[in-house]
Amino acid sequence: MQKHFELRCVLCGRRYPEGEVEYTCPHCGIDGTLDVLYDYGQVKKELNREKLQKDPTPGMWRYWPVLPVHDRANIPSLAVGGTPLYENKAVAAEYGVKRFFVKDDGRNPTGSLKDRASGVAVARALDLGRTHISCSSTGNAASSLSGFAAVASIGATIFVPEKAPVAKITQLLVYGARVVLVKGDYRDAFDLSVKAIDYFGWYNRNCAINPYLVEGKKTCGLEIAEELGWNVPDYLFVSVGDGCIISSLYKAFYDLVNLGIADHFPKIIGVQAEGCSPIHDAVKSNLPKVVPARRSNTLADSIAVRAPRNWAKALRAVRETGGSMVTVEDTEILGAIKELAESTGVFAEPAGVTAYAGFCKMAAEGLLNSSSTVVVVATGNGLKDISGARKAVGQPLITEPDLDELIKIMN
Amino acid sequence: MQKHFELRCVLCGRRYPEGEVEYTCPHCGIDGTLDVLYDYGQVKKELNREKLQKDPTPGMWRYWPVLPVHDRANIPSLAVGGTPLYENKAVAAEYGVKRFFVKDDGRNPTGSLKDRASGVAVARALDLGRTHISCSSTGNAASSLSGFAAVASIGATIFVPEKAPVAKITQLLVYGARVVLVKGDYRDAFDLSVKAIDYFGWYNRNCAINPYLVEGKKTCGLEIAEELGWNVPDYLFVSVGDGCIISSLYKAFYDLVNLGIADHFPKIIGVQAEGCSPIHDAVKSNLPKVVPARRSNTLADSIAVRAPRNWAKALRAVRETGGSMVTVEDTEILGAIKELAESTGVFAEPAGVTAYAGFCKMAAEGLLNSSSTVVVVATGNGLKDISGARKAVGQPLITEPDLDELIKIMN
Repeated sequence: MQKHFELRCVLCGRRYPEGEVEYTCPHCGIDGTLDVLYDYGQVKKELNREKLQKDPTPGMWRYWPVLPVHDRANIPSLAVGGTPLYENKAVAAEYGVKRFFVKDDGRNPTGSLKDRASGVAVARALDLGRTHISCSSTGNAASSLSGFAAVASIGATIFVPEKAPVAKITQLLVYGARVVLVKGDYRDAFDLSVKAIDYFGWYNRNCAINPYLVEGKKTCGLEIAEELGWNVPDYLFVSVGDGCIISSLYKAFYDLVNLGIADHFPKIIGVQAEGCSPIHDAVKSNLPKVVPARRSNTLADSIAVRAPRNWAKALRAVRETGGSMVTVEDTEILGAIKELAESTGVFAEPAGVTAYAGFCKMAAEGLLNSSSTVVVVATGNGLKDISGARKAVGQPLITEPDLDELIKIMN
Repeated sequence: MQKHFELRCVLCGRRYPEGEVEYTCPHCGIDGTLDVLYDYGQVKKELNREKLQKDPTPGMWRYWPVLPVHDRANIPSLAVGGTPLYENKAVAAEYGVKRFFVKDDGRNPTGSLKDRASGVAVARALDLGRTHISCSSTGNAASSLSGFAAVASIGATIFVPEKAPVAKITQLLVYGARVVLVKGDYRDAFDLSVKAIDYFGWYNRNCAINPYLVEGKKTCGLEIAEELGWNVPDYLFVSVGDGCIISSLYKAFYDLVNLGIADHFPKIIGVQAEGCSPIHDAVKSNLPKVVPARRSNTLADSIAVRAPRNWAKALRAVRETGGSMVTVEDTEILGAIKELAESTGVFAEPAGVTAYAGFCKMAAEGLLNSSSTVVVVATGNGLKDISGARKAVGQPLITEPDLDELIKIMN
C-alpha cells in the first residue's frame, strides 16, 4: 500500500501534503508544530484489531500503516519497542486504585523511549535519501540517535554544551557519532546546531521541530492500549520536559479513535519537577500559551526544560483528554526511584520515575477514583544516571569477615 | 505435567534425584558441580519444534519443560530473555565468514544475561518455600538477584568486598537488597557469605554451587538455536570468567540434541582476558583440571576470576564440542567496544565484548572457515561500565558557538 499523509499545524490548522513542508508550519513559525494525519479510512483496512491479533511482528514496527516511513527496507535493524507492561497489585492496593501498570521503556536498545523516535527519524532520513542526521541534546535523544545512525551507516553530528557530563558524551562517541562540544550553554549548542543543519543540509532530528518523531514515540501508547486488550486506561501518567512524549501519547489515542479501535482517550496526566514546570504553570493558570520558566532547578535533568518547544501539543494533550498537570519535589522523585524499583523491579532514571512520583502524589491526595486503571510510563533506564540514584538510597552494612560480628550488626 | 529430574556430578557421574542433594556432589565436594537432567523421552512430547512454533509465549519461560521450576505461579514478573539476535553482513564480510550474528543479552531487565539465572533461582526458592536468598558478587549477578528478589518479595542479602564500586552498590540498594560490605577482598566476602548462608538457612544463588542457575542461563543458547531456525551455528563465542555461562551454552545444545531438535553441537569458543586466563591455560596445556591464575590484571572485571569454580563444566564445553579457548589483550577489548557498537548498535560492557574481540582475533588469524555461521554472545550492557567505555573512545570536537569556526574545525 502506498502511504499518503498530510501535516496539520497545531496552531492554525493549515494542512500541507507530505513533502511540501519539512518541519514546522511556514505560517506560524517554530511554535507551529505539525501533526501527521493518515487516510484513516484507508488505513483501517490494514490496521485493525483482527489483523493485529494475527500479526506476530514484534516491537514498534507492527504499527507500520500509521508510521510515516515508505520503504520497509529502511527500518533500522535495532529491535525497538515491545517493552514490558507490568501490572502490580501491591501498588494498586497501596494507592487505592483498581489496577496499576508500569510500562518499562528503559528496555529499549539505547535505554530510553527516545529510541522509538530515532528509529523513525533514521528510516525517514533514508527514505529521503539523506546521508547525515543531526540534533542538539545532552541526553537520551543524542545517545539514541547515535546508536541508530550507526546501524543505518549514516553520519551523525551531535551538538552538546561544553559542560555535558562525560558519561553521556562517552555513550555518543562509542556509537561513532561526531560530537561537537559548544562553548556556552544548551541554548548556544542548539543555536549552532540549527545553523549547521541548515548550512550542511543535514536531516534534523530535533523532536519538537521534526513532526515525524512524535509518530515514533506514539508507538509506546499504541503498545499500552494493545497490551491492555484495547481497554483504554483511565489515567496515563508521563513526565514532561519539552512536551514531545506527552504529545505522542495523545497522538496514539487520536489514531486509535480515528481507526475505530478505541472509543475515547485516557486522561493524560503530565508530571513536571517542581523546580522547572512551565507547562504545569500554564495549565494551572489557564494560559493560552506557555511562558518560559524563570529557573530550572531539579535533578531530573532530562525534563529540566525552561522553554518547552512542543508546548502547544502538550497543552492539547492535557486539555482535550480531561487530564491535568502535577508537580513533584526532587525528594519525591528520589523516593520514587527506590519505591518503583523495589515494588516492580523497574529501575528508572530520575526523569523516568517522575511520572510515578506524580501518580503517588495524586493518589495520596485522593484525586484518583478507586475504580481506576492507571498506567505510568517509565521513560528511561536507571543505569543512565547512577549518581541520581545514589542520592535515593541508604548506606550498606559494613563488617569484618566474621560471622559473629555479622550476626551482631544484623540484629 | 509433573516434572522429574535428577542431578549428575560432572566429575564422578553419580546421580541423585532432585531433593536428595541441594548444591554440589557430596562425594566430590565443591568441584563436583551438578548437571540437571530431564526425562527427555517424556519432555519431547511437550517441547518440540512444532509446539514451539505455535507457542506465542515470549522470553525464556517458553522452554518451561526443561526449566527446573515446578510451579508456574512462582515465575517472577520481570520479562527475561527474548533478547535480539542481530545479523550483520558488514561484519561477516569484513572478517571473512558467511554469516555473523550477535546476541544482545544486555537487553535483559537488569542489563545482563545473569537475569536468566536469577529468574530460575528466585522461582526455585519460592518452589522450596524459601523466603531469603543470598550471594556474594560485586557485579551483574548481585544486581540481577536484587531485582528479582524485589519483585518476588523475598529477602536478599548480598556480600560484596569493601572496595566494590559505588555505582554497583547503588544498583543493589535501589532494589532494596541488604548489602553487606566485607572488610577484605572478594575471597573474604565469599567465605563470609558461605558461613552466613549456612547459618541463616538462606537459599544460595552462587552459580557454580547451585546447579539450577546454569539451567536459566542455557535459555540464551536455546533462543539462539530457535532464532536460527534450529540451524546450529558453526561457532559460538562467549567470554569466560567463572565458567558458568559457557557451561550453560553447552547445556542448551545438550538438551536440544537429547530432545532430537538439534543433531549436533556448535564449536564453543571461550574467550578470556589475557590478564586472567586460567581456563584458557588449562585447555592449551591439556590439563585435567584448572590451576588458579597467579594474577588478575584486566579491565574486564566481570570475567577477572583467578580460581573459576565451574571449571569442570567449562572444560567439557570446549573439549566435547571441538571448540577452543582464546585470549585477548585489554586493548583489543577496548577496540571491540567501539567496533561492536558502531557496526551493530550493541553497546556492551568490557566483559560483554570480550567474546567479540576473540572472534575478531581468530578470524583475522584465518582460523575460521569462510563458510561458517558465527554467533557472538554479548553478555552485559555497556551502561553498566561507562568508565571502561571511556577508555575506548577519542575526544569530541570543541568550538565556539560560531558556524565559521565549526566549518573550519570540521575540515
